[in-house]
Amino acid sequence: MLSAHVVQDLRRTLPAGRVLEDPGIVAGYLRDEAVWAPHGEPVAVVRPHSAEEVRQVVRACLRHRVPVVPRGAGTGLSGGANAVDGGIVLSTEQMTAIREIDATERLAVVEPGVVNDDLRAACAEQGLWYPPDPSSAPWSTIGGNVATNAGGLCCVKYGVTRDYVLGIQVVTGTGELVRLGRRTAKGVAGYDLAGLMVGSEGTLGIVTEVTVRLRPAREPERTVAGYFGSLTDAGRAVAAVGAAGITPSALELIDRHTLAAVDAWKNMGLSAEADVVLLGRTDAPGEAGDHEAETMLACFTGAGATWAVASSDAEEADALFAARRLAYPALERIGPVLTEDVCVPRAAVPDMLGRIERVGQRHDVLIANVAHAGDGNLHPLLIVPADDTVARTRAEAAFEEILDDALALGGTVTGEHGVGLLKRAGLERELPPPVLALQAAVKQALDPHGILNPGKVIAPCAPRF
Amino acid sequence: MLSAHVVQDLRRTLPAGRVLEDPGIVAGYLRDEAVWAPHGEPVAVVRPHSAEEVRQVVRACLRHRVPVVPRGAGTGLSGGANAVDGGIVLSTEQMTAIREIDATERLAVVEPGVVNDDLRAACAEQGLWYPPDPSSAPWSTIGGNVATNAGGLCCVKYGVTRDYVLGIQVVTGTGELVRLGRRTAKGVAGYDLAGLMVGSEGTLGIVTEVTVRLRPAREPERTVAGYFGSLTDAGRAVAAVGAAGITPSALELIDRHTLAAVDAWKNMGLSAEADVVLLGRTDAPGEAGDHEAETMLACFTGAGATWAVASSDAEEADALFAARRLAYPALERIGPVLTEDVCVPRAAVPDMLGRIERVGQRHDVLIANVAHAGDGNLHPLLIVPADDTVARTRAEAAFEEILDDALALGGTVTGEHGVGLLKRAGLERELPPPVLALQAAVKQALDPHGILNPGKVIAPCAPRF
Repeated sequence: MLSAHVVQDLRRTLPAGRVLEDPGIVAGYLRDEAVWAPHGEPVAVVRPHSAEEVRQVVRACLRHRVPVVPRGAGTGLSGGANAVDGGIVLSTEQMTAIREIDATERLAVVEPGVVNDDLRAACAEQGLWYPPDPSSAPWSTIGGNVATNAGGLCCVKYGVTRDYVLGIQVVTGTGELVRLGRRTAKGVAGYDLAGLMVGSEGTLGIVTEVTVRLRPAREPERTVAGYFGSLTDAGRAVAAVGAAGITPSALELIDRHTLAAVDAWKNMGLSAEADVVLLGRTDAPGEAGDHEAETMLACFTGAGATWAVASSDAEEADALFAARRLAYPALERIGPVLTEDVCVPRAAVPDMLGRIERVGQRHDVLIANVAHAGDGNLHPLLIVPADDTVARTRAEAAFEEILDDALALGGTVTGEHGVGLLKRAGLERELPPPVLALQAAVKQALDPHGILNPGKVIAPCAPRF
Repeated sequence: MLSAHVVQDLRRTLPAGRVLEDPGIVAGYLRDEAVWAPHGEPVAVVRPHSAEEVRQVVRACLRHRVPVVPRGAGTGLSGGANAVDGGIVLSTEQMTAIREIDATERLAVVEPGVVNDDLRAACAEQGLWYPPDPSSAPWSTIGGNVATNAGGLCCVKYGVTRDYVLGIQVVTGTGELVRLGRRTAKGVAGYDLAGLMVGSEGTLGIVTEVTVRLRPAREPERTVAGYFGSLTDAGRAVAAVGAAGITPSALELIDRHTLAAVDAWKNMGLSAEADVVLLGRTDAPGEAGDHEAETMLACFTGAGATWAVASSDAEEADALFAARRLAYPALERIGPVLTEDVCVPRAAVPDMLGRIERVGQRHDVLIANVAHAGDGNLHPLLIVPADDTVARTRAEAAFEEILDDALALGGTVTGEHGVGLLKRAGLERELPPPVLALQAAVKQALDPHGILNPGKVIAPCAPRF
C-alpha cells in the first residue's frame, strides 16, 4: 500500500474540501455504533458530492492499492463501517438529494446520504410511503440501510429494505459506475445483481444512487398493549396472533430488565406492572382494523395477559411505544451496551429468551431484551459496567454463546444488523465451508482487487493487483 | 466432451430407471414452450428422485465435461430449458414431495417438481396462501418458477416468486449440495445467494428444494370490468387507479385482437362490445374492499369506459376473466404464437401499446396483446400462419423491435419470463458492457466449469476444466 500518495492523488483529482485529514475530524469517522468492534487508522476521510466523485475515489484507491470503507451516518451496529488501517473512509453524507418521487410509478430516486426519515417525510407529502423503519430512521441513511438490508418494526408485515430496492447505482471494485436493477415494477433481465448488492455492506460495490419502490400512504395504526407475568405467556400470545391468521404491522416485546431501566430513567412505573410487555399494531383499514385489534387483544388475554388494552388514540399509543423507543438510551445509562441481533423461528422465541437468560446467568452479564417478536428477531442487549475489562470479556463470551443458541434453534446470527466485524465468527459457524467458499467466490468476482471494505462480512483477502 | 461415456457413468451411479435414452421419450424433453427457440440434441434425459441423485448427475457431468440442462414442467417461454447438443437434460418431475407446511412459521418446504397449483391447494387446506400465480400455475413447477422468478396476475399487489423464497437448496457448478438463505422471517448472514439463484434459469445452480414464505388465506376477490373504445382510454383508467392510491390484486388488459380470437372460438361477443377490456380485482377486506371496487369502477368510468361493472359474484367474475385465460389457446388456433414479455413504466403502457401496433403494421405481423397493465408488464403475442417461414422471419424482426421500443421507454426486455435464448440479444442491448461483464463474472464464480445450462441468459462460455 502506498497510503501516503493516495491522499495527494485525491486532493489533485477532487474539488477542494472533499479530503479531510484533520485528526480531530477524522476521529469522528473511525467507527460505527458497534463500540466494541475494533477499528483501524485511516489516512483520510473523503466526502464526495456525486457518483462521479465516488468513482474518482475508488479509482485513486485502485491506483494506490488502498482500501476504501464506505459509510453513511455511522449508525451501524456490527462494525461494518469501521475504518481500516491505512485506508480511506468514504462518507456519503454530502450526497443528500432526493432526485425524484414519482407517484404514478410509485418510486423514488435518492442519493445514498438521504436520511431515512427525510425520505419518508418527502413521500408522505405526496400520499406515498417508504416502509422500512429501522429504529435509527431519524439518523440513518438510505445508503446505509441498503448496505445492511435494514429492517425495523413494520417489516413483520411489509418486509425489509431488500423488498423496496428496485434499482441501484454503484461504483464497482474495478472503478466502474454502473446501474443495476430497473425502474419498472417487474424485471428478470439477467442475474439480480441489485439484490446481491443489498446487504453486502459495501464489500461488493459503493452505492451512489438508489431507486426504491413506494406504497400508497396507509391507514392510521391502532395499538394493542399487553402486560404479561412471564416470557412463556408472552410467547404464547405471539404464537396465537400468528395462528389467528392476521399479520400485525408491528409486534414488539420488551422484557423486565428493559422495563426496569426505562423506569429508573423516566419513572413510568412499568416494571411494577409487568414482567414482559407486548405491543402490537394493526393498520388494516376500517372494520378489518377493528377486527384485527380485537383479535390481537383476545390472543393477548387468552395467553394470560394480566392487563391488555386496544387503543386507536395516537397519543396514547405513542406513550405505549415510548418504552420501546427508550430502551436503548435507558440501558446505556447503566453501562456500555453490546447489541445482539439473532433471528429464530417465531415458535422458538420463548425458548430463545430462556436460553439468553441462562447465558446471562452463566457469564454474570446483565442481558435485557427487546424483540421484533412477530419476526422472531431478538435484540438481547448485553450491559457491563464502564471500563470493566473483565466484565467485557465475559460479555463477549456470552455474545458468542447467544449466537450458538440461535443456530441450535434453527436461527441466524443476524436478522437485520449485518455481519460487519462482530458477527464474522458467528457467520463462519452458521455457513458450512462450501457456502463460505461461494461467498468468497462472489466477493472475488465483484471486487477482484479486494479494496472494498476488506475484512467485513467475510475473512479479509490480501489486496490483489 | 465425452458424452458417450457420461451415460454409462450415470447408469452405473444412479438407481435403475433414472436414465432415459429412448428417442421417442427424449423427444418430449428437447425444448420448452418457446417453440421458436433453437434446441440441441441431448445424449440422455435423467430424472433423479432426490437431491443426492441430482448431485450425482452434476458430478458425472463434471467428470465427463458434459453440460446439464435442468428442467421443470417445460412451460417456460424463453427457451431456458431447451436441450444442449451432447448434454444431459435433468428433469425434476420425480421430485414432487411437499415436505412441510408450517402454519406458525408461515412457510412451506417443497421439492422442485411440485406443481404450483398443488402447493397452493395444500396451503389452502391449512388456511394459508402461496401467492405467485403464473398463468402456467396448473402445470408449472416451483423449481421452474424459482428458476425464472415467475410472476403472474396477483404480483401487482403481492410481488413475484423472489419475494417468497426464503431458502433454497441447490447443487452448485462444482457438484456441492448446499443450503442458501434461511427459514427465519429475517436474515442478513452473508451475501444473498438464495436471491441470486432466483431467476438465474439453472445457470448458477440446480434447485433441489425450496423454502417459501406463505401468507394467511385472503378474502374473496371482487372483480371490476370495463369496456373501452381505445387503448388511450384504457391506459388513462390504469393511471387513474394508481393515482387513486389503491393497489388492485390484479389489473389485466385484453386488446381487440385477443377479444376477436376468443370470440372466433367461444362466441362470447366481446369484440362487438369493446376495443379493449380492463379487468381489475380487489381483495381488500370488508368495507375497504367495497371502497376499492367502487374507486376502480369510478376510475374506469371517468376514463371513458363505454360499459363498466363491479361484481362480487365469483361465477360472474370467472366468466369475465375467461377471456384473459383463453387468450393464448384462442390465438394459437390462428397460428404459432411468439410470446413477448416486456415491462415498461406504468405510465408508458398506452405509448408502448401504440408502438407495438406500429411494429405489427411495419412488419405485416398480427400482434395481439394481453397485459398485466397494473405492472406495466405487456405480453404482445405475435402470430404467423403455420409453416410460413417468410412471415416468421418478419415476426422475429418485429419481436426485436418491440424490445427496442420497451428499452426506449425505460423498460426491460423481460418482465417475468426470463432471458433463456429468445432474449439474449435483447439483454445485450439492455445492459451496458460493464454490467454484462459483472454478470459473466458471477457466472464464472459460481459455475467455474461452465456446465450449468450453458448458453442461456448470457453468451456461452466454453467448458473449462
